Amino acid sequence: MRTTARAPRPICFTDTVTEAPYTVADHLLDRLASLGVRHLFGVPGDFTLAFLDHVERHPLIEWVGCANELGAGYAADGYARLNGLGALSTTFGVGELSAINAVAGSSAEHVPVVHIAGAPTLATQAAGRATHHSLGDGDFGHFARMSAEVTAAQAVLTAENAAAEIDRVLRVARDRRLPVYLMLPADVAETPIAPAAGPLPERDPITDLAALTEFTEVVSGLAGRAASVAVLADILVNRVGAEAHLHALLEQRIPHATLLWGRRVVDESSPAYLGSYLGASSDPAVRAAIEDADLLVMAGVQFTDLTSGFFTQRLDPARTIEIRGESARIGDREFTPLAMADALDAVTAAVRAADLPTAVDSRADAAPPAPVPDRAPLSQALLWDAVGAAIRPGDTVLADQGTAFYGMADHRLPHDVVFVGQPLWASIGFTLPALLGAALAQPDRQPVLLIGDGAAQLTIAELGTLLRHRVPAIIVLVDNSGYTVERVIHGLREEYNDIAGWDWAALVAAMGPSGRGAGVRVDTAGALRRALADARAFDGLTLIQAVVPPEDVPPVLRSLATAAAAANRPRD
Amino acid sequence: MRTTARAPRPICFTDTVTEAPYTVADHLLDRLASLGVRHLFGVPGDFTLAFLDHVERHPLIEWVGCANELGAGYAADGYARLNGLGALSTTFGVGELSAINAVAGSSAEHVPVVHIAGAPTLATQAAGRATHHSLGDGDFGHFARMSAEVTAAQAVLTAENAAAEIDRVLRVARDRRLPVYLMLPADVAETPIAPAAGPLPERDPITDLAALTEFTEVVSGLAGRAASVAVLADILVNRVGAEAHLHALLEQRIPHATLLWGRRVVDESSPAYLGSYLGASSDPAVRAAIEDADLLVMAGVQFTDLTSGFFTQRLDPARTIEIRGESARIGDREFTPLAMADALDAVTAAVRAADLPTAVDSRADAAPPAPVPDRAPLSQALLWDAVGAAIRPGDTVLADQGTAFYGMADHRLPHDVVFVGQPLWASIGFTLPALLGAALAQPDRQPVLLIGDGAAQLTIAELGTLLRHRVPAIIVLVDNSGYTVERVIHGLREEYNDIAGWDWAALVAAMGPSGRGAGVRVDTAGALRRALADARAFDGLTLIQAVVPPEDVPPVLRSLATAAAAANRPRD
Repeated sequence: MRTTARAPRPICFTDTVTEAPYTVADHLLDRLASLGVRHLFGVPGDFTLAFLDHVERHPLIEWVGCANELGAGYAADGYARLNGLGALSTTFGVGELSAINAVAGSSAEHVPVVHIAGAPTLATQAAGRATHHSLGDGDFGHFARMSAEVTAAQAVLTAENAAAEIDRVLRVARDRRLPVYLMLPADVAETPIAPAAGPLPERDPITDLAALTEFTEVVSGLAGRAASVAVLADILVNRVGAEAHLHALLEQRIPHATLLWGRRVVDESSPAYLGSYLGASSDPAVRAAIEDADLLVMAGVQFTDLTSGFFTQRLDPARTIEIRGESARIGDREFTPLAMADALDAVTAAVRAADLPTAVDSRADAAPPAPVPDRAPLSQALLWDAVGAAIRPGDTVLADQGTAFYGMADHRLPHDVVFVGQPLWASIGFTLPALLGAALAQPDRQPVLLIGDGAAQLTIAELGTLLRHRVPAIIVLVDNSGYTVERVIHGLREEYNDIAGWDWAALVAAMGPSGRGAGVRVDTAGALRRALADARAFDGLTLIQAVVPPEDVPPVLRSLATAAAAANRPRD
Repeated sequence: MRTTARAPRPICFTDTVTEAPYTVADHLLDRLASLGVRHLFGVPGDFTLAFLDHVERHPLIEWVGCANELGAGYAADGYARLNGLGALSTTFGVGELSAINAVAGSSAEHVPVVHIAGAPTLATQAAGRATHHSLGDGDFGHFARMSAEVTAAQAVLTAENAAAEIDRVLRVARDRRLPVYLMLPADVAETPIAPAAGPLPERDPITDLAALTEFTEVVSGLAGRAASVAVLADILVNRVGAEAHLHALLEQRIPHATLLWGRRVVDESSPAYLGSYLGASSDPAVRAAIEDADLLVMAGVQFTDLTSGFFTQRLDPARTIEIRGESARIGDREFTPLAMADALDAVTAAVRAADLPTAVDSRADAAPPAPVPDRAPLSQALLWDAVGAAIRPGDTVLADQGTAFYGMADHRLPHDVVFVGQPLWASIGFTLPALLGAALAQPDRQPVLLIGDGAAQLTIAELGTLLRHRVPAIIVLVDNSGYTVERVIHGLREEYNDIAGWDWAALVAAMGPSGRGAGVRVDTAGALRRALADARAFDGLTLIQAVVPPEDVPPVLRSLATAAAAANRPRD
C-alpha cells in the first residue's frame, strides 16, 4: 500500500492556534492530505463555498478550478492515476451529475477518486421544499443513490457521523482503489469537531500464510517442469502498487508482454519486452510467445473487449499462473487471500531456482524505419511513427481512446514513460482534462497528449485551464474531420460521424493569455517533426493540429473495428 | 394536449416499399415524429450507429450532432421547451451519464425529453464480460437504474417488448410532461417489427364533472363577494398547454404578475401586467397588488427558493384559488381531478359575471429611462437596460441562471417574446446549448442568449454547433471574470470564484467557418448599443463580449444572494 512507504505525517495540518474552530471540512482535508492529496479539482457552487474557504486556507491542498465538472472529474482521475489518490469537489445535483461520467470511469478503471458533493443544509433538506439544484420533489437522496451505482462506498455526512464516516469511506478508496462519494451539507462542513486522535489505520495485511505456502509449492513444481516461461501483465499491477515486484520478476529476462491497458507497468525499452498482446489482433510473434509458452504468468490481467481483440485470447489455464489483486489461480486451484506482491515474489524465487531460458533481445528484430521525406503528406502511419520517435524517457503520455491509443500500440516506449489510456470505460475526450491532473501530480514529467478532433471537442473547455495553470503540454491533435473510430466500425461517410470544423491553433490564442501557448497546423512529415521539436523546446503549451485523411486508420484499429461491428450486429 | 390540435398524421413515415425491413428503430422514430419531433440531438457511439442509419433515412427527423452529450441534452431540453417534446440519442454509459445532468434538469423543470441510450447487444450483455463503456463487472443495469432517479418512465427494450414499451414510455412523456428513458440495445434497434396498427392513443380526459361543478360554484361565490382580484401565474401553465385559457382570463384586464420562472406564460406588454413577483424581493407595488388582493387566482405556480425570495411569499390560502395541473385547491378544499384549462375557464366565467374592477395601466408608472451617454462605462444596470431595449416582439430570449436571469427581472418584455430560464435546476451553462434547440424548434424567432463568462465556459463547445447549423443568434456574454453569483453569496474575492480569462470574440472565429459569425468586445453603453443593432442586422451569429466590473450585480440578485447565504449557514 502506498501509505506504508511514506514518512509519518502529522495528523492535523490545520493551524489550530488561530481563532477559527477546527471543523468537519478541516478533518476531511487533513485526511486527504495524509493520503497524499495535494490538489482538489472542481467547480464552485453556493453549497460548497464555505468548504472551499477551508481549502483556500489549507497549507497542503491547492484548489484547481476547472471550466466544468466533467473536466474536473477527468482531471481528478488523471491526477489519481499518477498520484495514487485524487479528489473532486462539486455542488449538489447539477455539479455532481455533470461529473458522474468521470466517476463511473474511475470505477471501471480502478482509480481511487474521492467525490465530495456539497449539498443544502440539513435544515433545508428536512424542510423538503423546492430548492435550487434539486428536482423540486423534496427528495434529496436521488443523486446519492445514483452515485452509489458507480462508487465503492458512500456517506451522507452529518455533524454526528462525519469523523467516522469520512474515515470509513476514505479507507475504502485507499484499500480497494475505487472512487467513493461523500455528500457534505453546507452546514455540516462548518460544524466544529475535535481533530482526529490518530492517523487513519493502516490496512490489515492481505496474505494468508497457508495460501502463500501452498501457492509457492505449486509454482515451484510448475517452474521446475517447464521448458519456457513468459509473463503477461496488465494495469492491475499498477493499481495494487506491485510494480516493483513485477520488475524483480522481469529482471530474470523473462519474455513478457502487456495488454494495451497496462503498458505503463513494464519498461518497454527492455530487451525481454515482446510487445502488446491483443488476442487475435496481436503481432503473430507476440501471440505465439504468450500463447505457446510452457508456463504463463499472468499478473493483474483483466481482459476487456477492446484490449483482447474482442475476447480472442487463447490461453490454457493448466499452463497459466493467474495472479490477481488479492488471490491467485492455477488451473482449478484458488489461492486466497494472497497479495499480488507476495505471489509475484514467490514466482520470482521459483523462476530463479528453475533457471529457465531467458529472452533473446526483441529489439534486434526491429527494422530501422525507412527515411520519410519532409514533404510526405501525413498519414496515420507517418503520424504515429513521428510521435513515437519524439517520446522521451520520463514523459507522461495520454492517448485518447481512438486512433491515438491504437496508433501508438505498435510503438515501443522509452524507459520510464507513464502511458495512460482508458480502454475499458473508453470515454472519448477523457485525456484532455486528465492531462491537467497528471501534469499537476508529477510536474517533472513532460506531459504529452494524443487526441482526435472529435474527442477534443467533448472537453475542449479545459484547454483554458491547462493554459491558466501553465502546463507545458505537447498536444498532438489528429484533425481528420470527425469520429474516425466510429467511421471504421459503421457509417464510413454518414453525416453523423462528421463534426464541426474548428481552427484548433486559433483556440489556443483564444483560451489563454498571450505567450502561454502556441498552435500550429501541419500536414507533412517534415512540418510535424519540426513542430514536435519546437514544442519540446518551448516552455508553454503547444497544440499541433495534425491533418490526416478522414478514412485512414492505424492497422490495429482496423482489425478491432471489424470485431466491434460484428459484436453489434444481431445474431441470426 | 398539444397532439389534439394537430392534423391527423400517417402512422408510418418510413417508406416500406424499399427493401430494408421495418424495424424497432423505425417504429420509435415514427412515434417520435407523430408527436411532433423533427430534430434528434446527440453524439454517436458504436452502440448507436445502426440506429442512426434509420435517423438519416427518416423523412421527417433530422440528426443534430453536438460536440458533447451534456450539450446535446441541453439542446434537446431547449427544443422541447419550444416544440413540446424533444429527443436525445447517446451511447451506453459514457454518453448517457454525460447527459444525465441535462435529463435531471428536464425532470426538475417539467420538460418532456425522450432519452434514447444505445446499448450493447442483448447477447453481449448476457455474456457479462468486460465490455467497453461498462463498469466491467457484468452488470449492464447500473445506468438504467441511475436514469430511473431522474425520469418518469423507463424501459429496457427487447425485440418482444419494444412496440408496447416504446408506446407506454412515450405516452408518459407526452401526458406527464417529464423526461423518459429508453435503453435500446444495438441488435434490438435492427429487429424487424410490424408497423403500428394505429396512432398512439390520445390521453383520457382529466376532468371529473362533479369536481368541476363544485369548483365552479365555490369560485362564483368567491368572485361575487370579492372587491378585487389578481392573478399570479407560473411556468406550469405553459407545461400543461393552458396558456390560451389563461390569456382568456387575463383579457378581463385583471392585474397579474408571474414568477420569474413563468414569464413566458403572459404578455408583459399588456397594460394589466404588474411585473414579477418574488416574495420579499418583489417591487413593493407588485407585492402589495398580489398579496393584498381580495381574491388571488394562482395558476400553475410552483414556489422555488430562487423565484420566491427564499419562500418569503405571504399569501392567504382562504383568499386564494390555487389551480394546479390536474387539481385545484381553495382554502382546505381540494377539487380533483380537474384540468387546469377547465379550472381557468370556470374562473374566467365567474370573474366576468362578477364585474370586478380592472387594472389601471401599469405601463403609465414607468419613468422613461434617463439618456445614457455613449461613452458611459458599462455596468450591470446599463447592460440590462440596453439589452432590454433591444429585445423585439417574437424573439426567443434565453437567460442563464446568474446576472443575466436576474438582470432582466425588472425589464418588461415585448409582445410574444418566449423567455426561457432554468431557475429551479439552475445549472449554469444550460442556455448556450438550449439556444441551439430552441432556435431549431422555432426558426422564425430571433434567438437571443444572455449568459455569463463562467457559465459559458461550462458548455462552450456547442458554440461550434451553433455556427455549424447557421443559427443567427445574438449572444450577449457578460465578461466579469468569474462566478459573480457565487461572489455575492460567499467569497467575494476568493480565488475559487475566478475563472480562466478567454478572448471570447476570437473563439467565434476559431469555432466556425469564416463569415458565419462575428465577435465584438464592448465596454461602453454606446458600443453595446451599436453592437446590438449590428447583430440584429447580421444574418450570422454575433457574440458580444460585454465587460462589466466583477463585483457589480443587479439589485434583485443582491437581495436573493443575501437570502441564499443565510440559507447555507448552520443554524445556532
